[in-house]
Amino acid sequence: MSSLELVARAALMRAADTGDTTMGRLVAALGAVKAWEAIRGRTLPPAFVARETQQERVSRLDQKLHTWHNRLASADPAEDIAIGERSGARLIVPGSPEWPTQLDQLGSSRPLGLWLHGSADLRFACLRSVAVVGARSATSYGTHVAAEFGFGLSEAGWTVISGGAYGIDGAAHRGALAADSPTVVVLACGVDIAYPRGHLDLFTAVRGQGVLVSECAPGVHPTRARFLIRNRLIAALSRGTVVVEAALRSGALNTAAHALTLNRHLAAVPGPVTSSMSAGCHRLLRERKAVCVATPEEMIDLVGVLGDDLAPPPRSPAVPRDALNDVTRKVLDAVPSRGGAGPASIALAAGVPLDAALSALGGLAAAGYVERVEKGWRVRTPASAAYRKHHSVPDPVDSSGADAFAEPMPPQEQTAPLSDLA
Amino acid sequence: MSSLELVARAALMRAADTGDTTMGRLVAALGAVKAWEAIRGRTLPPAFVARETQQERVSRLDQKLHTWHNRLASADPAEDIAIGERSGARLIVPGSPEWPTQLDQLGSSRPLGLWLHGSADLRFACLRSVAVVGARSATSYGTHVAAEFGFGLSEAGWTVISGGAYGIDGAAHRGALAADSPTVVVLACGVDIAYPRGHLDLFTAVRGQGVLVSECAPGVHPTRARFLIRNRLIAALSRGTVVVEAALRSGALNTAAHALTLNRHLAAVPGPVTSSMSAGCHRLLRERKAVCVATPEEMIDLVGVLGDDLAPPPRSPAVPRDALNDVTRKVLDAVPSRGGAGPASIALAAGVPLDAALSALGGLAAAGYVERVEKGWRVRTPASAAYRKHHSVPDPVDSSGADAFAEPMPPQEQTAPLSDLA
Repeated sequence: MSSLELVARAALMRAADTGDTTMGRLVAALGAVKAWEAIRGRTLPPAFVARETQQERVSRLDQKLHTWHNRLASADPAEDIAIGERSGARLIVPGSPEWPTQLDQLGSSRPLGLWLHGSADLRFACLRSVAVVGARSATSYGTHVAAEFGFGLSEAGWTVISGGAYGIDGAAHRGALAADSPTVVVLACGVDIAYPRGHLDLFTAVRGQGVLVSECAPGVHPTRARFLIRNRLIAALSRGTVVVEAALRSGALNTAAHALTLNRHLAAVPGPVTSSMSAGCHRLLRERKAVCVATPEEMIDLVGVLGDDLAPPPRSPAVPRDALNDVTRKVLDAVPSRGGAGPASIALAAGVPLDAALSALGGLAAAGYVERVEKGWRVRTPASAAYRKHHSVPDPVDSSGADAFAEPMPPQEQTAPLSDLA
Repeated sequence: MSSLELVARAALMRAADTGDTTMGRLVAALGAVKAWEAIRGRTLPPAFVARETQQERVSRLDQKLHTWHNRLASADPAEDIAIGERSGARLIVPGSPEWPTQLDQLGSSRPLGLWLHGSADLRFACLRSVAVVGARSATSYGTHVAAEFGFGLSEAGWTVISGGAYGIDGAAHRGALAADSPTVVVLACGVDIAYPRGHLDLFTAVRGQGVLVSECAPGVHPTRARFLIRNRLIAALSRGTVVVEAALRSGALNTAAHALTLNRHLAAVPGPVTSSMSAGCHRLLRERKAVCVATPEEMIDLVGVLGDDLAPPPRSPAVPRDALNDVTRKVLDAVPSRGGAGPASIALAAGVPLDAALSALGGLAAAGYVERVEKGWRVRTPASAAYRKHHSVPDPVDSSGADAFAEPMPPQEQTAPLSDLA
């Protein structure tokens, strides 16, 4: 990537409104560097003008060239890049290794470049990603479901993309962060602006664990138009969009429309028909524009690749909980269901010696109750039961026994592991 | 209808299990009277036996004939009819004026006859009818929505059909009764049996205002098999079925399957994804077997005949509420939004003289605020706003001002009616 190309695109990002398709076509025709030169010289190539004029845009084109030229006069793209990089952000453009090529589908509304701020690699993060969107004025039901989707999708290895707003967006991002996964916030302002201000801490956490994305230059403030045009990026970056809560007139429905236009999967979460905040979701379902999804697993079934992402058939432990001996049961109760814990802390929590805990953990793993993860041991969650479990029982450890593993086992399957555990 | 035909069918209803398709084919081949004779003589026509045997039913057919014959030996169909008629019920059979011919679509599982008890004409009541079904163990959300659907459908002239069970069924029937409309209860036992017993009062009310329906003879008790086979009648009598709440394994889904088999409309009401009682509805939506409906109006849009049942475009009153004079506003506040009230009682409630009330009512009607109904005057409900209104604001009169009629009017439309009212 030549630095001249970077500077030219940074300049054009200052000249054009976000999503300006005329600028998109100009850059497609001339390349960014020559487009920049043409605007500075106030002269567009006759062939380009002729093509645009055929579509009756002659006066608009003159007006646009005038605006672009004036904006360039007060822009300092090299300084934009320097300021951005000093703050820790980076500018990527089409052709950069981190550029998500799925944005090419936007055609002439493809962004000229993207400012990124955060530790995650945008292209990699978006390979398997889902946009979780919805109302700012969400209900507690909506934020609960959005957080569950954020957590469940992330835990299954899917990146959550959203707009960083209050309500559904924020809950989805927080759910993803809670699963120790990267999450992508697509902003309608510069990546150095915290909007809404109340999400300053959220954006800080996303920088550490995920990435902030914007097609606006540093210091640019959000406007209503930028929010709407930003929504196409949320839809275009992800394999599919799920609307968690939306009133009949909601910006989230704009993102949904972009997803349909781009032929991406569109899903909606139902809610009470007595809630106006679910009315937009129900209309999408009623008009068969969206698929009804009730769990993150159903969303993954929708956007996943067949054979790759289908949930494995749920397996149940081979020993009923009642058959566990006292020490083993204490150890099981001490194993966390999220994250993970080392044997020493599990032994401490269970109140048993370390060697007894280690032996019990081995037996519990063989019986399918617990599993090794990066951080130690955790309760094994059958993929299909994960979502139901979190909902029905507040205590995550108890719930695994009560809900997910309650199925009675045929006697012959109990024999072998019981000897390990009893 | 010959009384011999009636008695023969009453006899065969005792002989065969409900929905027995072998009996259905026998009656189709011979007629009810000859079928009755053949079973009494323990000899089925060779042509019929040959046809049935082609489909490898020879041993089953012998067994069935044996069972039918034995049951007939202990049946007294003339006495069945006498007992039923003494209790106030009536037996109808295909060809009776009250027979709903849409049942013919059931083919060989068409009921042999139907016992009816109630004031409504079954055939007429089912011409424009919707089945509202769902779980017995419904949530308060579900019973609220079922009652709103029962009321809303009935008020719009649609008969509500359901199974008379606890939960969704009962709430839907009660909603219909509250709208002073007939409702149809299809029982899985004799029409003289109150099952569930706790719905004795409900069934009494339905007899007065609607009709109880059963394909079982008087005195027959419900069984699990009879409930399932009964469900085909609920689906077949109505133009469409809406499932309000259903767990993943719910009898209501059996009715839904019948509706699909019969090519009738199928709809489901969404609910919170955190509620297992909506999981069956969400699966129907997810599999695109059912259309998502959130209001009775949306259900009517689905089952209604184009041009006949489409909701009229909502008209708003031509005068803003603020522009009404004091007396007129008092009168408007005194007009009920459901049912209707006479001018004298409105005048009393408003605390204004009768002639002032009459004059104000005329002006309010001209301005689109109130309308004449059978019982007097009521607040005019734009069809599209009716459901939202009942939900959002508890007080029905206030809500019409706050919600349905809040749209600002262009000044030229205000001029004429204002002179009537000011």
